[in-house]
Amino acid sequence: MRKVAVLGVGMTKFSGKQDKTAVELFSEAAMDAIVESNLKPKDIQAMFIGNCLSDFAEGQGQPQAFAAESIGASNIPANKNEGACASGSVAFRDAYMWVASGFYDIVIAGGTETAAKMGTPLATRTFAMFSDGRYEYGCGLTFPGVFAMLANLYAAKYGIPMEKFKRQLAQVSVNSHYYGARNPKAQFQKEITVEDVLKGVMVAYPLQLHDCCPFTDGASAVVLASEEKAKKLTNKPVYVAGVGQASGGNLASQQEYLPRIRARELASKQAYDMAGIKPKDVDVIELHDCFSIATLIALESLGIFDYGKAAEAVEKGETKIGGKIAVNPSGGLKAKGHPIGATGTAQVYEIAKQLRGECGERQVEGAKIGMTDTLGGDGGTIVNVILKKG
Amino acid sequence: MRKVAVLGVGMTKFSGKQDKTAVELFSEAAMDAIVESNLKPKDIQAMFIGNCLSDFAEGQGQPQAFAAESIGASNIPANKNEGACASGSVAFRDAYMWVASGFYDIVIAGGTETAAKMGTPLATRTFAMFSDGRYEYGCGLTFPGVFAMLANLYAAKYGIPMEKFKRQLAQVSVNSHYYGARNPKAQFQKEITVEDVLKGVMVAYPLQLHDCCPFTDGASAVVLASEEKAKKLTNKPVYVAGVGQASGGNLASQQEYLPRIRARELASKQAYDMAGIKPKDVDVIELHDCFSIATLIALESLGIFDYGKAAEAVEKGETKIGGKIAVNPSGGLKAKGHPIGATGTAQVYEIAKQLRGECGERQVEGAKIGMTDTLGGDGGTIVNVILKKG
Repeated sequence: MRKVAVLGVGMTKFSGKQDKTAVELFSEAAMDAIVESNLKPKDIQAMFIGNCLSDFAEGQGQPQAFAAESIGASNIPANKNEGACASGSVAFRDAYMWVASGFYDIVIAGGTETAAKMGTPLATRTFAMFSDGRYEYGCGLTFPGVFAMLANLYAAKYGIPMEKFKRQLAQVSVNSHYYGARNPKAQFQKEITVEDVLKGVMVAYPLQLHDCCPFTDGASAVVLASEEKAKKLTNKPVYVAGVGQASGGNLASQQEYLPRIRARELASKQAYDMAGIKPKDVDVIELHDCFSIATLIALESLGIFDYGKAAEAVEKGETKIGGKIAVNPSGGLKAKGHPIGATGTAQVYEIAKQLRGECGERQVEGAKIGMTDTLGGDGGTIVNVILKKG
Repeated sequence: MRKVAVLGVGMTKFSGKQDKTAVELFSEAAMDAIVESNLKPKDIQAMFIGNCLSDFAEGQGQPQAFAAESIGASNIPANKNEGACASGSVAFRDAYMWVASGFYDIVIAGGTETAAKMGTPLATRTFAMFSDGRYEYGCGLTFPGVFAMLANLYAAKYGIPMEKFKRQLAQVSVNSHYYGARNPKAQFQKEITVEDVLKGVMVAYPLQLHDCCPFTDGASAVVLASEEKAKKLTNKPVYVAGVGQASGGNLASQQEYLPRIRARELASKQAYDMAGIKPKDVDVIELHDCFSIATLIALESLGIFDYGKAAEAVEKGETKIGGKIAVNPSGGLKAKGHPIGATGTAQVYEIAKQLRGECGERQVEGAKIGMTDTLGGDGGTIVNVILKKG
């Protein structure tokens, strides 16, 4: 298989409810990525989009077909992946394979969603369908409930008093907002304090409003190309060093692996092995902080901190720029926003910009290896991508 | 890229509303395909599923994650493609690439749907979202309306008097039911006459009840493997000779190409060129007869008959077994049934069985080259697959 590069990247401003359709948002992000790649739409040979909710949100199934037409890449093969929150990352990994195999030289991967348009109560209920329909959704569970249970399980398993644990969880969100305030594309660009988190409305004990990411409207897109094409088109190539993916089944099936996410342990190992690196080699990571507790679980199942140790590490500042590893310098799902199907390639967008040194105030100086981590549903789909500076 | 084989194939009985979930139906088809491949679930390295409506029909998004767990292939990467009616074929083409590239040796592709469970009126309205949400669905169009317009356009363009044309269209459905009556897995196993079609309720002029395929519950699955693995596992390998895919945008954008489907002309050319064959070399085809008029459009845009000539060819029996080309010996979408996301790999199921000579009463004797054709929405996604007897 061939070496594959990420060329141009694009994303819309992430936001609450706005007036554009999912197809229109994607077109905006895609055109930015194509222009940044020094290409024209007719150079794109295939399209891979992540999307979950545009049928429910705006009556648009199969948005990929209309997105291809919309950017002027009429008739190219256009795929849509649905892997819950990991949809965009599944699309990226798939796009990677079509270039790595030698079948295509230049493709575009991305995602788009108008989840905020639905309003939080309806989006929450609708999106709950991406858990197991028989044993989870069918019992009335929604994702805040799932992650609240994981938070309780985590605190109990590692013997952390809940009042202490809530402050540690709060710090996760404080960090995200600190970086979000330095990202002009973020949905929330305002710093918050631990006290702000602790006085927020209770969503599902112990998770309060600021422990939860928002629903977001937005799109992201990245151009992938063969090494040969990349060398002709850019002086700042970023290469795909490793990809990994695993599925998780329902939560009950994971048993002793909770509050770990077994699929993530497996997916990240695939990516590390393919890239020939260890977790400690990663300079910067965009990981799936849909809830504050999700960050701790991710940091541990990715092998960055030992099991039961992530909360303390966050408290000590080890996940900030300058710490052991820079986590979510974009502001993450919490502050940058979480347009479900667009999140995966928005993570790739941030890592590519970091490796190119284009992140201004939130730049991780000297970053050479970056990683993305996306979790779909409550662990149904996990995708990890490792990128290296060229 | 490596040569890729189709090993075992499986499908459930296609039916109207029944009690199993989309995950349960898929598991049944997948286990048949795995057993027929002389494999065990743990041998499957990745899964690719087509599915469109299980969120609307039964509150199950992301069914692929639970399907992997359900068949005992826990934690394997599991992708879901949504490309409207072509979802299963997109999944198949994707699965093909992951093996052709050398990344995986053995994967499973398939599709599942419980569309009949929704009831025809709700399924029709829901599925209309897979047309363009801005210019088609937004105007109140549903697919019977789209294909009725294409039928009127076809008759007008080629100067066929409508009463004559309606009898020609009816013959398409008569053929499908003739073969469906010989397929024990078909939803409808009863022959019908031209008179039966002409006395049916009018759905959207000129299309009557029997010009329209049903909504169906069902699943299908096929195992794909490298040539090396195939040689060890089967004496009857069937090889993937060509694949093609294209997107279509909205109908209005096709302008002078209507009532042709431009995306199909492009996708089929990709598949023919890759396989090194011409349309006349195909012995048997499973094509997308969602409406009787769709069969005529497909036969022409695939290059099997000249533009404006397919209706007459059907009338003369050239699309029956023993004619110029055997079309839809399974009974097609009309009689075998149309479980949206499962249709593509059900077409592959039939072609694989035909090339192996296992189709009994509906066998196309001596078939060496077979083809599938799946159309998503009103041309948004087209996928063609060409299979050759090993």
